[in-house]
This record gives sequence, C-alpha cells and structure tokens, in this order.
Amino acid sequence: MNALDRLTALLARLPGIGKKTAARLSYYMLDADPAYTAALVHELGGLRDAIHQCSLCGNYTETDPCPICTDPDRDRSLICVVEKAQDVRIIEEAREFRGLFFVLGGLIAPLEGIGPGDLGINRLIDRVRGEGIRELILAMNPTVEGDTTALYLQKMLTGVPVEISRLASGLPVGGDLEYTDRLTLSRSFRGRVKL
Amino acid sequence: MNALDRLTALLARLPGIGKKTAARLSYYMLDADPAYTAALVHELGGLRDAIHQCSLCGNYTETDPCPICTDPDRDRSLICVVEKAQDVRIIEEAREFRGLFFVLGGLIAPLEGIGPGDLGINRLIDRVRGEGIRELILAMNPTVEGDTTALYLQKMLTGVPVEISRLASGLPVGGDLEYTDRLTLSRSFRGRVKL
Repeated sequence: MNALDRLTALLARLPGIGKKTAARLSYYMLDADPAYTAALVHELGGLRDAIHQCSLCGNYTETDPCPICTDPDRDRSLICVVEKAQDVRIIEEAREFRGLFFVLGGLIAPLEGIGPGDLGINRLIDRVRGEGIRELILAMNPTVEGDTTALYLQKMLTGVPVEISRLASGLPVGGDLEYTDRLTLSRSFRGRVKL
Repeated sequence: MNALDRLTALLARLPGIGKKTAARLSYYMLDADPAYTAALVHELGGLRDAIHQCSLCGNYTETDPCPICTDPDRDRSLICVVEKAQDVRIIEEAREFRGLFFVLGGLIAPLEGIGPGDLGINRLIDRVRGEGIRELILAMNPTVEGDTTALYLQKMLTGVPVEISRLASGLPVGGDLEYTDRLTLSRSFRGRVKL
C-alpha cells in the first residue's frame, strides 16, 4: 500500500465518499496546486482546536458565546430548536428566522437507548422558564424520533407560558405529487392552508 | 468566516464535491475520531513528497521504476497505453491484463492546443522500437480525443513490427439497449463477435 492508497483508504471512510470517489480525490490532490493542499492540511489540522460548542446554544463556533447568541439584532424571545449544529447553518442560509437557536445534540430514540437525559432538553427547559421565551419553534426533522422529541418537549412545558410550534411538513416547493410519498402527502393534506 | 467555513470552502473546490457535501464533511471531521483526522492530515501533507511518476511508464509510484515495471512475472512484450495514471489503477483492479503500461499524460486535442509533442508519444515509440514490443493495446477512452490519439499512434508506427489493438467498445455488461446511446449501439454492431 503506497501513500496514494493510504490516502484513498482514509478518504473512503468519509460519509458519502465511496472507493471510486476517494481514488479520484487522491489523484486530484496529487496534481492540485501545492498552496491548495497546504491550506487544506492546515485547516483540517487546526479545525478541532478552533471550533467549540457554544455554551448557550450548542452551535459550533470559534467564540463563546457564538455570534448568533450575542447578535443584538436578533429576537431573543424566539428559540428555534434543532437536532444538530449542521441544522443551524441550513436554517441560517434560508434567512427566514431571526431569533436564537438551541441545539439538542440528538433526538429521543428509545431503541438506540437515547433518552431525554442524554440531550440538552433540561437546559432548554430551564432557559424557556428563566428567560421569558415567547415562542419555541421545533425544527427537528419530520421523522419518528423528531416527532417523539417534539411531543416530549411539549409535555414537559405544559403550564409554562410559551407558544410551541413545529415546522410545516408537506410537499417540497417545486415538487411533484407523483413523486411524493404517501405520508408526506397525507401530512400536506392535514396541514393545508386556506387561501 | 470561521475555521469550519474555511474548511468547507476548501473542500467545495474538490471535483464532484458540492457546497452541501463539503459542509457535511467538515462537520464530520469535527466529530470524527482525532486519530482519524490526524492520519488524514499526515497522509495529505506527505502525499506529494511520497509519490512520483515512474520514469519508465509514467504511473504514480513511491519507488522508481514502479512495482509494475519491475515485476518479473509480467509479460514485457505487451504494453497497455492509457491516458492518465488513474487508468492504470482501474485496469489493475480488473486483473485482466498482465503486461506493462504506458501513461501518455493526456490525449491529442488540437482545439485545446495539445499536440503529440505535449504527450509522451515519442518516448513510447522509442520504446516500441527498442524493446521488441509484440503488442500495443490502446486503452484510451472511446472519445474523439481518444480515437484521434489512437489513429496518430497507429500512423507513427506504420512499418514497425508491432500489433496494435484497441479496447472493444460496446454495450456495458448488465446494460440495457433502451438506455444505450446511438453511438455506443452502432459501435457494438460494428464490433459484434461471432458466437
């Protein structure tokens, strides 16, 4: 196994990267601008030291608290709850939401042994109670685990004066009825909007 | 732009890696086993110093000549001509060919200003003449550039006592007539094999 094969084997362990793509990437690195590969090595090597979780929201950040938590222009009475830090980036890119975030770090999944105690749920509940949060937008994926976690949060916050909402589920924009699964279609019926 | 964004921007410059995949990979690196990322940084950083082109065949190798050129069990009267070093790996994985290789480092492409002089063609012709090569298998892709380069090689070797062949072109194994383009279909007719 030479250096090219070793790099290929390592790259093939990345999610979504198969053996062929890994080989193609290795050959690309060999021919690429040395400044590019040097930058990649530098950033990759320094990533873990540079990035930490925000102690308030759990988002990945270089500063603590993160730029979102300290942004004075954001609505501090609105919290969007997501499963993982990646979701914060995706929602930020849509430029639709201008409140704060809370990263659970997972979803309740009894079969995998993940209970509420393994997630940041208690910290979230304390925050909702202590900071006078007006609305909690639950933005977990519309899956069994996402729904379970949403239900649990709703139950735990019974009696607390906070509005709880869940992202709409239905047909994707530009989608086609023909290629939509039965569950999504039935959700889009139940969630239909009056015009 | 924090360290995560910088790594994502660098990864998004890789071939076949879009912005979303790059972001997914960056988050993966953040959560991955530190030993894994350390190994990746090490191999990536050392790649260019470890790997060179074989002075005989042009394949990427840690030793010069490469393990294929020095393998005593290979048929030294047979040379498979490929466009790029990646192709050597693909052919080796098929375990069908047991001769030597020759990497051209490109194909003749007049519109892009790549002529025979830019490739290793003269070195190949010298080798065929000097080493008593019995057969030259042209394994360039079945494209306009591949065909042009094959034709040029054939012309340059007129009168030299060497058999020249070209990889068969036709329907892929497991393929379907319905999804085959017209050119491939017409080639598979012309190259039909008697049963």
